[in-house]
Amino acid sequence: MAQLLADRRDVNFVLHEQFQLENLSQYAVFSDFNKKVIEMIVTELRNLSIKEILPTNKPGDTEGCRYESGSVSTPTGFKAAWEKLGQGGWFAPAQNVQWGGQGIPNTLNVIAQNYLFGANMSLLMVAGLNHAAGEIVETFGTEEQKKLFLRKLYSGEWSSTMQLTEAEYGSNLGDLTTSAVENPDGTYSLSGNKVFISGGDHDMTENIVHLVLARIEGAPRGSAGVSLFIAPKINDIVCTGIEEKMGLHGSPTCAMALGSKGKCRATLVGEKNKGLPIMFQMMNKARLMTSAQGLACASSAYLYALDYARNRIQGVLPGDPEKKPVQIIRHPDIRRMLLTMKAYTEGMRSFLCYIGHLEDLKTISKDAPDKAGLQGLIDILTPVAKGYVTDRAVDVCNMGIQIFGGYGYTSEFPAEQLLRDVRVTAIYEGTNGIQAIDLLSRKIAKNNSRMFMNLMDKIKEIVVGIPEDDELRELAARLEDALGVLEQAVKKLCRAVSGQDILTALAHATPLLEVTGDIVMAWMLLWRAKVAQAGLANKVKSRDKDFYQGQIQSARFFISSILPVTIGKMGSILNFSGSVIDIDDAALGGH
Amino acid sequence: MAQLLADRRDVNFVLHEQFQLENLSQYAVFSDFNKKVIEMIVTELRNLSIKEILPTNKPGDTEGCRYESGSVSTPTGFKAAWEKLGQGGWFAPAQNVQWGGQGIPNTLNVIAQNYLFGANMSLLMVAGLNHAAGEIVETFGTEEQKKLFLRKLYSGEWSSTMQLTEAEYGSNLGDLTTSAVENPDGTYSLSGNKVFISGGDHDMTENIVHLVLARIEGAPRGSAGVSLFIAPKINDIVCTGIEEKMGLHGSPTCAMALGSKGKCRATLVGEKNKGLPIMFQMMNKARLMTSAQGLACASSAYLYALDYARNRIQGVLPGDPEKKPVQIIRHPDIRRMLLTMKAYTEGMRSFLCYIGHLEDLKTISKDAPDKAGLQGLIDILTPVAKGYVTDRAVDVCNMGIQIFGGYGYTSEFPAEQLLRDVRVTAIYEGTNGIQAIDLLSRKIAKNNSRMFMNLMDKIKEIVVGIPEDDELRELAARLEDALGVLEQAVKKLCRAVSGQDILTALAHATPLLEVTGDIVMAWMLLWRAKVAQAGLANKVKSRDKDFYQGQIQSARFFISSILPVTIGKMGSILNFSGSVIDIDDAALGGH
Repeated sequence: MAQLLADRRDVNFVLHEQFQLENLSQYAVFSDFNKKVIEMIVTELRNLSIKEILPTNKPGDTEGCRYESGSVSTPTGFKAAWEKLGQGGWFAPAQNVQWGGQGIPNTLNVIAQNYLFGANMSLLMVAGLNHAAGEIVETFGTEEQKKLFLRKLYSGEWSSTMQLTEAEYGSNLGDLTTSAVENPDGTYSLSGNKVFISGGDHDMTENIVHLVLARIEGAPRGSAGVSLFIAPKINDIVCTGIEEKMGLHGSPTCAMALGSKGKCRATLVGEKNKGLPIMFQMMNKARLMTSAQGLACASSAYLYALDYARNRIQGVLPGDPEKKPVQIIRHPDIRRMLLTMKAYTEGMRSFLCYIGHLEDLKTISKDAPDKAGLQGLIDILTPVAKGYVTDRAVDVCNMGIQIFGGYGYTSEFPAEQLLRDVRVTAIYEGTNGIQAIDLLSRKIAKNNSRMFMNLMDKIKEIVVGIPEDDELRELAARLEDALGVLEQAVKKLCRAVSGQDILTALAHATPLLEVTGDIVMAWMLLWRAKVAQAGLANKVKSRDKDFYQGQIQSARFFISSILPVTIGKMGSILNFSGSVIDIDDAALGGH
Repeated sequence: MAQLLADRRDVNFVLHEQFQLENLSQYAVFSDFNKKVIEMIVTELRNLSIKEILPTNKPGDTEGCRYESGSVSTPTGFKAAWEKLGQGGWFAPAQNVQWGGQGIPNTLNVIAQNYLFGANMSLLMVAGLNHAAGEIVETFGTEEQKKLFLRKLYSGEWSSTMQLTEAEYGSNLGDLTTSAVENPDGTYSLSGNKVFISGGDHDMTENIVHLVLARIEGAPRGSAGVSLFIAPKINDIVCTGIEEKMGLHGSPTCAMALGSKGKCRATLVGEKNKGLPIMFQMMNKARLMTSAQGLACASSAYLYALDYARNRIQGVLPGDPEKKPVQIIRHPDIRRMLLTMKAYTEGMRSFLCYIGHLEDLKTISKDAPDKAGLQGLIDILTPVAKGYVTDRAVDVCNMGIQIFGGYGYTSEFPAEQLLRDVRVTAIYEGTNGIQAIDLLSRKIAKNNSRMFMNLMDKIKEIVVGIPEDDELRELAARLEDALGVLEQAVKKLCRAVSGQDILTALAHATPLLEVTGDIVMAWMLLWRAKVAQAGLANKVKSRDKDFYQGQIQSARFFISSILPVTIGKMGSILNFSGSVIDIDDAALGGH
C-alpha cells in the first residue's frame, strides 16, 4: 500500500540509522525512549494522523472557517480532531512532563510534526500555538500564571494565540501601538487592534488564552518599550473578522479588537518592556515549527505524486516499436521531477531532525561551553531551516502539481491545496527575506563568523570521513569544492556587510541563504548515502537494498545535478553586482 | 499615476524603439499601421482593458462559474465584457480582414494579449479560442464552413471550443476514443466524452462551435486515425459538469458528452485521419498564446508589487540613526525581488514581441527560403516561449506575493489570484515537460541542429555588434562565454539523444529548455540595453533618461547575477548524471 504523509521506511532510517535516537535512552531524561517505544510512538502518530486528522484536511479547505458576529466556526471534523490530539498528548509532545507535556526527544518531535502538519496544517498550526504559548509561560511566567494556564494549554482544553502584528506593523514590531495602562491591582488594561492573529477565535475550545504585545503608558519608543501580556478570551478580546486567504482556509486568521469596551484586563508576562526579546526567543522555535510545516507539505506532495506516477498510464517510451502506453513514472522528465522532490524531501527531513538532535544533545549535556556550541549551531541553522526549507517546499509542491498534469490543477487531487497551504510558510514567522538578513547579519557576520566556521567543521566531519577509495569519494570531493567557494562568498559578504557596501551585501543575503541551504542538503544527502552504504554492506532484505540504493542515487543526483547550480549561484554572489542598489527607484518604471 | 497591467513606456519602447514596428507600414498588408495609428490602438486597448475588462477579474475569481443541469453561467460582468471585446474587434485582432479580422501586425498583437490577458485571463482564454478555431476553419475548412462560421467567430457573436482531451488521453492524444460514424449525407455522427474543455458551455453567446477530435469507424490505430470535426452546440453536445480548480475560476473547464442522444451531427474539417497534424499546427499558436498569458500575469504582478513597495512603509534602513521607517522599496531584498521581476517581465515582453516580429517579417517576405528561415526560428522559439515564459511567470507571480508580505497571501490584493491563475499555463497546451522534449528532440537535435545554429547566429548579431570600448562590452563578453557553454551542452545532448543514452538525454531536456530561455532573456536584455544606450546619446527628458538607465541596469543585473546560475545549470547538463534513469522505481520509496 502506498505510504501517506511520510515514508515510514525513511522515517525509521533517519531516527534509527542516521541519528540513532535510541542511544539517548541511556540518559535519565530520555530513559523511556528505547527503540521499541520510539517505534510504537511513530506507529500511533501515523495512525492518528492518517485515520483521524487527514480526513479533515479537504473539508477544512473547501468549507473554510466562517465568521459571524464575533465568532468563528471551524470546518466539519475539526473539533473532533482537536480532541483526538488531546487524547494522544500531541498538544505538548516535547514539553515538560511536570506540566503535562510528554517529554519526547526533539528529534522525534520533528517526525511528529512531519505527520501531523501533513495531515492538516490548518488545524495543527492553531494547535501548535498551545505549546508555543505554554513555553513562554513556563519560561517567563509567574507560578500563578503557570498553575492557571499550563496544564490547560498542554492538554488542549484551552487554546492560545500570539498577538503581535498590527495593520501597520508586521515585520517591524517595535513601533506597535496597542496600549497597556496599569491598574491599582497590578493588572493592566489593554486597548488596541491586531491583525493576522491565527486562531484568534474558534469553536474548538471553551477558552482561548491570548498572549499580547503592547506598550505600557509612558514606555520608551521603539523595541525597548514593548511588553508582553496574557489574557483569556472572556476579557473583552473580540474577533472582528477573518481574512480570505490563498490557502490555509481551515485556520482562522483573525482581526482582533482588544478592550473596545474598556474591559480587557491582562497580566504582565516577564519584565516590563522586555516583551520583544521574549517573543523573539520563542519565535526561533516558531520558525523551526514553520520549517516543519514546509517539510510536511513537501513530504505529502512527493508521496501523492509518486503514487500517481505509478498508477497513471500515458504516453509511450521513445523507441518502443509496440508503442505501448506506460506508467508515467517511466518518463524521464517525470522521473527527474520525482527524484528532485525525493532528494529535497529527504534532505529536509534529515536537516530538521539534525536540529532536533542538536536540541536533544543540548538537553543531556552538562557542560556549559558544549551547550553553547550546540546552541550556536541551532542559531545559525534556524534561519536556513525557516527560509530554505519553506522556499524549497513551495518548489516541491509546485512540482507535485506538474506531475498530475491537468488533474494537478483541479481540487480532485490534493496537490493544488498543498501549494496554496504551504505558500504562507515563506511569509509568516518572519518573511524569508528577513531570515536571510538574520543569517548574514546576525548569525554569520558576527564574532568573526565563528558560528559559520563551526558549521563548516560539522559538514567537513562527514566529507572528510569518506576515504579515497570509496565510491562516494567523488561526491565528497565535489561537496568539498563547493565548501571552498562558499567560504569565499561568505568572506566577501562579511567584509561588505560591515562597510560601505552594506546595502549591496544585504541584496545578496537571500542568494547566500539559498546556497547555504543547498550545501546543507548536499551534506545531509551525502551523510545518508554513507549510512546507506554501511547498510548495504550487511545482508539485507531486497526492500532495504532498494531503499539504501535510493539513498545513494539521491546523493548522486543532488551533488551532480543541483550542486553545480549552487556553484553558479555562488559565482553570482562573488560577482557582487551593485545593480539592485544602484538602480534609481524611478528607473524601476511603473509611473 | 501607477501603471496597471503593462508599463506603457516599456510597451512603446519595445514597439517603436526595439522592433520599430512602424517601419512595416511601408508594406501594403500593414500600410494602415503607422506610428500614430499604433499608438492610438495601444491607448484604446489599454482603456478597454483597464476600464472595462479588469473590473470583472476579481468577481470572476470569487464568484467563479456555476454549473446547473447542463448549463454554465459566468460571473458578473463577463457577458458585458465579452460584448465590449466584440465592439473593439478584439476577437480576431491579427486575423484576416476578409473574414472580419483586424489584420494588425503580430508584434502589436502580443501587446494586445499582454493587456487583455492581464485584465482577465479567464475571460480572454475563452475569447481567444475564437480566433484559434477561426484560423483552423480559415486554413482547412470548406468554403461553406468558412461562410457559416468565420464572421460569427471573429465578431464574437458565437464562441468556440477545442475538444481534444479525454479522461485517459491528455498528453497522449493519439489513442483517444471518441468515435465518428459517417452518415449517407456526408456528415458524421459523433459519440464520446471529453474533459478539460475550456468554454465548453457558458452564457455569453447564443451558440458555441465545437471543434472535436474523433476517430472515424475503421480508422487506423493511434495518431494516424484521428480526424477533426466541427459541430455547433445545439447538436447534442452537452456539458456534464465543471472542474473545481486552483484558479482561473472565471473560465469554465467542462466535461462534455457528445452524442449521448445519438444526435451529434458534425462535418469533417480537412482530410480524414489528418486531425492531429491540423491540431498540432494550431497548437503552436495556442502555445504562443499561453506564453502571452504568462507574460500578462507576470507584468501585472510586477506593477502591483512595485506600486505596493512604493507606498508601504515598514522597517528602517541599517545604520539610520533616526530609525525612520521607509517605503519598503528602499530595502535591498525587496529591490532584489523587484529588479528580478522587472528583468524577467521586460525580457519576456521583448522575447514574445520578437516572435511576433518574425511572424510579421514572414508575412511580408516574398522569398521562400527567407520565409522558411523565419519559420525555423519561430519553430525553435515556440517551446521556449511556452515552457520558459510560463515557468518564469509562475516565479514572478510567486515573488509578487512575497513583496506584499502577509497581505500577499490574502485576497485583499491581486497577487495571490495571479499565482493561482498563471499556474495552469505551465500545464495546458502541452505541459512544460513536453515543450522541453519538443525543443530537444524535434527542434534542436534534427537536421544537424540547423535551427539552433540559426538562433545562435541571431543572438551573436547583437553580441558582436557591441564594440570593444563600449560600456556594455563586459556584459556582451559574459553572454558570449555563456553561448559557448550552451553550444557544448547542446552538442552533448544531441549526441546522447540519438543513441543509447536517449533516456538520460531526455532527463536533461527541461534543464536545456531553462538555460536556452535564460540565454534568450540575456540576449533580449542586452539588445534593450543597446537601444537604451542609443536613446541616452540623444537629449532626452529626465523620465526617458530614468527609463533608459533602468534598461541598462536590468541587463547588468541579469547578466551579472542570473547568468552565472545559468552557467551552473549548463555545468549540470555537462555532468550528464544518469541517476534519474538509473534509480530503480522501487528505490523511489513510498511503498
